[in-house]
Amino acid sequence: MTLPPLDVRLRHPLPDLSPEPFTLTSLGGLRAAGVACGIKASGRPDLALLVAERALPVAGLFTQNAFAAAPVRVCQEHLTATQGRLRALVVNSGNANACTGAQGLSDAREACALVARAVGCDPAEVLVCSTGVIGQALPMDRVRRGIAQALEALSADTEAGRSFLHAIMTTDAFPKEASRVLASGALAAGVCKGAGMIDPSMATMLAFVGMDLTVDAGALRAALPTIAARSFNAVHVDTHASTNDTFLAFSTGRRAGAEGWQDAVGAVAERLAWQLARDGEGATKVTTITVRGARDDEAARSLARRVARSALVRTALYGNDPNWGRFVSQVGNGPELGDPSRVRCTLQGIVVFDRGEPAAFDRAAASSAMAREDVSLVIDLGDGAGEGRVLTSDLGYRYIEVNAEYTT
Amino acid sequence: MTLPPLDVRLRHPLPDLSPEPFTLTSLGGLRAAGVACGIKASGRPDLALLVAERALPVAGLFTQNAFAAAPVRVCQEHLTATQGRLRALVVNSGNANACTGAQGLSDAREACALVARAVGCDPAEVLVCSTGVIGQALPMDRVRRGIAQALEALSADTEAGRSFLHAIMTTDAFPKEASRVLASGALAAGVCKGAGMIDPSMATMLAFVGMDLTVDAGALRAALPTIAARSFNAVHVDTHASTNDTFLAFSTGRRAGAEGWQDAVGAVAERLAWQLARDGEGATKVTTITVRGARDDEAARSLARRVARSALVRTALYGNDPNWGRFVSQVGNGPELGDPSRVRCTLQGIVVFDRGEPAAFDRAAASSAMAREDVSLVIDLGDGAGEGRVLTSDLGYRYIEVNAEYTT
Repeated sequence: MTLPPLDVRLRHPLPDLSPEPFTLTSLGGLRAAGVACGIKASGRPDLALLVAERALPVAGLFTQNAFAAAPVRVCQEHLTATQGRLRALVVNSGNANACTGAQGLSDAREACALVARAVGCDPAEVLVCSTGVIGQALPMDRVRRGIAQALEALSADTEAGRSFLHAIMTTDAFPKEASRVLASGALAAGVCKGAGMIDPSMATMLAFVGMDLTVDAGALRAALPTIAARSFNAVHVDTHASTNDTFLAFSTGRRAGAEGWQDAVGAVAERLAWQLARDGEGATKVTTITVRGARDDEAARSLARRVARSALVRTALYGNDPNWGRFVSQVGNGPELGDPSRVRCTLQGIVVFDRGEPAAFDRAAASSAMAREDVSLVIDLGDGAGEGRVLTSDLGYRYIEVNAEYTT
Repeated sequence: MTLPPLDVRLRHPLPDLSPEPFTLTSLGGLRAAGVACGIKASGRPDLALLVAERALPVAGLFTQNAFAAAPVRVCQEHLTATQGRLRALVVNSGNANACTGAQGLSDAREACALVARAVGCDPAEVLVCSTGVIGQALPMDRVRRGIAQALEALSADTEAGRSFLHAIMTTDAFPKEASRVLASGALAAGVCKGAGMIDPSMATMLAFVGMDLTVDAGALRAALPTIAARSFNAVHVDTHASTNDTFLAFSTGRRAGAEGWQDAVGAVAERLAWQLARDGEGATKVTTITVRGARDDEAARSLARRVARSALVRTALYGNDPNWGRFVSQVGNGPELGDPSRVRCTLQGIVVFDRGEPAAFDRAAASSAMAREDVSLVIDLGDGAGEGRVLTSDLGYRYIEVNAEYTT
């Protein structure tokens, strides 16, 4: 494949994120490592390992894709077998081990077994994730070597936690982590990877969030769907579309009590979701699309998703173009709308469309207001009390560059 | 708004289209004109007029968007009032006259009235279309002047027909026309405009197809949905999403009989639809996505649309990247799939995925095979007899350029 040389300076500013004070190893009782074992041709870190002192309560949410990858199936088996116990987590990047048939399942199980043997636990207490190109067998000689290296490198310090994070990245432009300290002193911390949340087949998201409170696996399982609905599943369209999407939440139990754990884990998940949208392969900002006044919440979410999915909306966001016609026409193109003459659109607090007609506003000022890292688009249908919210990335030149040149 | 200077050579080859021997004026009994009256800041032609010797049977299909533009509403009123008679058609480009409230309706009616007075017919026998930026009032002084100029310029020759076509274009990279001569000597000819069929809010499509056979308005009306389903509505997702989409078909009745008219008009519509996909704002090719072996036709169409909508699929097509993982993961991400282990994907005749697993194939050869203007992707679910087909454009750098810089 020959693409034209791309010698323009593409706009891809990194987000303005303060460094997080805490990462997974800050939760205590956890050792981590991230090493390079040659799965990625680039030589970048590609094998990550997390090992707990003892088995921790854990719950997971996974892709609903019919072609769910081998590691997803193995995780589901293990979680069912143990009813939610996590002693270790092994992740490789650079290869998704998806659409790899029986060999893929066998390879994922072998990775768990290797870690289990070294750690001295049941293989079902080891969870496994993969992310990268799909349809190619895992290079198991490298994976075995990587696991051995990572076992050697395990450490409880923050730097090791960061190495873990770097080794799970693929096309991510920046590492994604978040933490939250409650008034009680309890800590929640998480990391994730993902950059292609746009459309998003094959947009693998892996997210691992832990906290030091004492919550059992059943409670984690029960709360996870709600937490995901407000965070990872609110990132443009639906993270369930990839073959490998995985969200794990666990509890170290080093601190008595569970009060506030859902808020803390929820806040971390929402902050990670924002970072996913921010890194949407070439994104320059995150736009929060809020639909209000819908007949119910489901109608609001459905409309928000349709607006977020539009390539025309997303290129307008990239171009700082207050082209409300593109937003409004998506509103009109579906069953959620009641009376068109009640619709109001507000962009960065500026009313651009009101009562079904264009509002007078200063286009230049609106364009300047859009040149931010956080943009808000509110669509009020004036029809009921339903509300929904999604995050979307804008669509710029770099998205094409990243995605037209991925495997060949 | 400041975008980085784009000094790369963007790939945007024009399609290899043979010039059409016939256009609308070739149908006989029609005079046409296309003039520049200043609606477009560029000074390009922006007002088109078609006038028939006598009222012709006509039928139309229109956007289903709740914010349907004023000219769409006026066309619908006029077609209802006349039961399908067309004496003249006036089209402006550069301004969509959409979301323009009562003023917009009044402006669209005035344009019809001006033409009707000059031609000597009922205003309801005049149809009107607009395409361009939405939410801005039509500059009626210019429209009035343009109509006067166009009335002066009316001519029955081919050049006038081409002027009409050029005056309906907006971001189109090339004019779109097609014709078909039946064995009987009967002629169908059509023109259309549209380039943003991608996602596609605000992707206005206007298509006008006529033939010289004798078909009444009722028969045209009855057949139009089927013709559109195989042509304009098979272009990626759904052309109904814009506020202005219009498809008009008419019959001049200069030739006795009607035999074969649906095939002729259908063939012209399909060829125009291919050109719409080919011009998908920066597209370098048209990909026909065919789903076979689905449980029914609707499931096949639904899956084909979802694959076509994926930005990851469309960037892979742009990059000539046989990254079947992106196609397959969209197959797995929905309710149409029966048994994943029966799925087969064929790209340009090369089997890339078979029985639910990757097939061995030569990636370089597959990539070369994708570097064509017409690409075929066939997904066989092995589950039933349902079949569906959509056309999609690929997604490249120029799409971003066109769409990030449209109004500001």
